[in-house]
Amino acid sequence: MKTLKVALLGCGNVGSHVARILLDDADELAARTGARLELVGIAVRSPDAPRDVQLPRGLFTTDAEELVRGADVVIELMGGLEPAGTLIRQAIAGGAAVVSGNKALLARQLPELSALADTAGLQLSYEAAVAGAIPILRLIRDSLSGDRVTKVMGIVNGTTNYILDAMDSTGAQFADALAEAQRLGYAEADPTADIEGLDAAAKAAILATLSFHTPFDLGDVHCEGITGVTAADVAAARDAGMVIKLLAIAERVEGSGGEEGICVRVHPTLLSRDHPLAAVHGAFNAVFIEAENAGELMFYGQGAGGRPTASAILGDVVSAARRVVVGGRGRTETTTGNVRAVPIDDIQTSYSIGLEAKDETGVLAAIARIFTEHGVSIEAMRQTTHPADAGQTDSATLRFITHTGRESALAATVEDVRRLPVVREITSVLRVEGN
Amino acid sequence: MKTLKVALLGCGNVGSHVARILLDDADELAARTGARLELVGIAVRSPDAPRDVQLPRGLFTTDAEELVRGADVVIELMGGLEPAGTLIRQAIAGGAAVVSGNKALLARQLPELSALADTAGLQLSYEAAVAGAIPILRLIRDSLSGDRVTKVMGIVNGTTNYILDAMDSTGAQFADALAEAQRLGYAEADPTADIEGLDAAAKAAILATLSFHTPFDLGDVHCEGITGVTAADVAAARDAGMVIKLLAIAERVEGSGGEEGICVRVHPTLLSRDHPLAAVHGAFNAVFIEAENAGELMFYGQGAGGRPTASAILGDVVSAARRVVVGGRGRTETTTGNVRAVPIDDIQTSYSIGLEAKDETGVLAAIARIFTEHGVSIEAMRQTTHPADAGQTDSATLRFITHTGRESALAATVEDVRRLPVVREITSVLRVEGN
Repeated sequence: MKTLKVALLGCGNVGSHVARILLDDADELAARTGARLELVGIAVRSPDAPRDVQLPRGLFTTDAEELVRGADVVIELMGGLEPAGTLIRQAIAGGAAVVSGNKALLARQLPELSALADTAGLQLSYEAAVAGAIPILRLIRDSLSGDRVTKVMGIVNGTTNYILDAMDSTGAQFADALAEAQRLGYAEADPTADIEGLDAAAKAAILATLSFHTPFDLGDVHCEGITGVTAADVAAARDAGMVIKLLAIAERVEGSGGEEGICVRVHPTLLSRDHPLAAVHGAFNAVFIEAENAGELMFYGQGAGGRPTASAILGDVVSAARRVVVGGRGRTETTTGNVRAVPIDDIQTSYSIGLEAKDETGVLAAIARIFTEHGVSIEAMRQTTHPADAGQTDSATLRFITHTGRESALAATVEDVRRLPVVREITSVLRVEGN
Repeated sequence: MKTLKVALLGCGNVGSHVARILLDDADELAARTGARLELVGIAVRSPDAPRDVQLPRGLFTTDAEELVRGADVVIELMGGLEPAGTLIRQAIAGGAAVVSGNKALLARQLPELSALADTAGLQLSYEAAVAGAIPILRLIRDSLSGDRVTKVMGIVNGTTNYILDAMDSTGAQFADALAEAQRLGYAEADPTADIEGLDAAAKAAILATLSFHTPFDLGDVHCEGITGVTAADVAAARDAGMVIKLLAIAERVEGSGGEEGICVRVHPTLLSRDHPLAAVHGAFNAVFIEAENAGELMFYGQGAGGRPTASAILGDVVSAARRVVVGGRGRTETTTGNVRAVPIDDIQTSYSIGLEAKDETGVLAAIARIFTEHGVSIEAMRQTTHPADAGQTDSATLRFITHTGRESALAATVEDVRRLPVVREITSVLRVEGN
C-alpha cells in the first residue's frame, strides 16, 4: 500500500484533533483511502506550547516551508492571510493537494488559489471554512451541480446564533447575552469579528462563489452585525410569531438595469417561527438552499468546535488522498458563470420598522403619506401607546411591516420618516425573509 | 469541447424531467462539466405513451440494449430488478458510467454492482435512490469519510410521513389519512410498499452499506410498517410531548457475544417533539446522523417528485461526466469494513406499551412484577380509567414507557404481560428514540 505524506500547518483546537485522528485512526483511514496517511510533521510557532491533545513532541517543527516541501497533502489551519497564503502557493507549486479551513484567506483569494490548483491539476478543498462539520460546500459544488441554485440563506456563525437564541429564550439584552456567551466560551474576549458580521460575511462570499459559479469576495458582501438588536426587537418579533437570526444570504436578483445578478449580504433578519432555520438553536449552524429543481433543502450541524471541524478536514483529506491514489486531475471548481454582484439597494425585500413618535392625532397619517410617496405599501402596523417617562409628553411606539419593495425605496422611506418632526426616534429597522 | 453520449433508460415522472433538463440546460451543464452532454436516446416500452413533459419523438426507442451500446453515461430509471440489472451490467461492460435511482435493485445488488464498476474503473452513482433530492449518499460517502458514523436515523419515505403527520395534526385514523393521501397523490393505489415499510427498508440497506463500509441487503433489515398505528397512539404520543415517525435506523451496537455489529431496522418510532426529525412535516424527508467527531448532523429536503429527484440524478450525471473529462478511475465505494448485521433482538432500546386491563386492584402490581422478572424498569406510567362499553365491566387504559433495555427482554416482557388474565389487550408497542 502506498504511503502519502501529510503535513499539518497549525495546531490549535482543530489542528490538534486532526493530528489525533490521523494518528489514532490510521488503519481505518488507510482502508478507506487506499493509502496510508503518514503525518510527517506539524508546523507551529511554539512547539512547547500546551495543547488540548497529547501529541508526539518529535512531530513539531517551526519550519513550515521545509515541512511543505515533499508533502503529498498539506492541511493549512494557521488562519490569517500570511504566511498561510504563501505556504499554500508553495504547496501547490510542489505538487501537493491542499486542505484549508482558513475562511479569512479564502474569502479574499479563493478564485486565485482555485485557478492555481486547477492549472496544476491538484485538489484544493476547504469544507471546514464554512459551517464547520456541515459538508455544505461539497453539497453545493457536487450534488447541486446539475441544478440551478436561486437562493442560499445560512446561519453560519455560532456565536451570534447563540446570543440571539439566548435573547429570544430569556429576554436578555444584547450586552448581557454577549457577556454570558463569553463566560461560557461561545464568544471570544474580542467578539468584533462575530458580532459585527465579518466572520459570516467571509463565509457568505465563499458560499456565493460556489453556489453561483462566479467569484465573489468580501468586498461584494453587504454586512450588518447584531450589536443594534435590542431585547425590545426580539420581544416584538416573538409577538409577531417571528424570530431574529443573523443570516448570510446570497440570491439571484434582477439588477436595476433589468439584468440578472447576485446580491450577497449579512444582516439580522426576521424569520417566521415556521421556517426551518428558526428552529436552529444555540451555537448550531444550518444552511437553507432553494434550487430550481431540488426545491428546498436544509443542512444542519455543529458549526465550530475542534472535533466537528476536524471531521470536515479529514473528509477533505481522505477525498484528496483517494484522488492521488486513483490518479487523474483533482476536482476543479467551476467558475464559469459570469453574473455580477448586485448592491443591496437593488434587492426586493420587506422591512420591519420600529419607531417612537409623539402620541398625537395625525401622526399615522403623516407617516403613511411618506410610505405612499415612495411607493411602499404597509402590510401590518401595531401601535402601543404608553405613559411618558418623567418630563416627557406621551409617546407612542409603532411597528410597521412593509410589503416587498426595492431596498433603496425602503431605505429612503425610513430616512424621510426619521426627519418627520412628530417622529422622535427610529428604534429598529430589520429585513424580513422567508415569507 | 468533448461530447459525451448520455442514454436514458425509462421515462416516467423523474426520467422526463431529467430529459428536459439535459435538453433545456445543455449549455449550462456543458460549462460545468467541461463536455457537452448529448442525450442520444430514451428507452421506453411505449414510445407513444403520454408524458408529463414534451420531448422530441425521435429520441424514443424500445431497444434499450442498442441504446446502452456506445453510451458514455447511462441513466437507469426503469425501476424493478429486470431488465434494469442486466442493462446496468451491459453498460459497465461497455465502459459507461452508470447513474441509477433504482432502490429496489440497489438494495439487493449494490455490493455486486459496485464491485463490477470498481473493477472496470467506472463510476456507479445512485444519489436519487435514497431521500430524493437530499444528497445524503454523497455526504456519507465523501464528507464523513474521515469520521466514524455511529447512528443514522432517517425519514426516508414521504408517503408514510405524510400519513403520520396528517394523523398528528388532524387526529385522523390511519385508514382515513391513507385515503386522503391517495386522493392527493401522496400514496399509490396499492400503497403496500410504502405503508408496510418495504420502501424504507430498501433505503435503510443502502444507507447502512455506505455508513458502515460493509455490504448490507434487504434481508438484513428488520421491517415493521405503520398500519398498526392508531389515532389513540398518536394522541397518547402528543400528550407525552412526542410524535410518531416511521424511521429507518442503522446503528453500531454490541451484539450478544460482546462484539460490535450493525442493526438495521425500520419501524414506527416515538420521538420527542424537540428532536430535529420531529419537525419534518408532510412528504418531506430528512436524515439525522451521529458521527464520532462531527457530532449531530441533519439533512432535510424533498424526498420524491419528478423535479427534485431529477436534480439528484443530474448531480450524479455531471459528477460522472466530469470524471470522464478529467480522466482517472471513477470514485469507488469503500466496503472495507467487516462488521456483521446484528438482529434487532440484540439492540438496546426502550418501549412504549399501551394496554387495556381490567380495572381492579392488583392489576398494576401484577404487570410490574413481570417487568421486574425480565429486568426491565419502568420510566413512566399513565393510567386512564373509563366507563366500560355496553356489556363490559370497567376497563383501564395503561401506557408504560420503559427505561432502556435489551430488545429481547422487552419483547418477552410484552408477551408475558399479554398472557396475564387481567390484561384484555396489548393495544400498542412502539420503540422510543432520541432520548
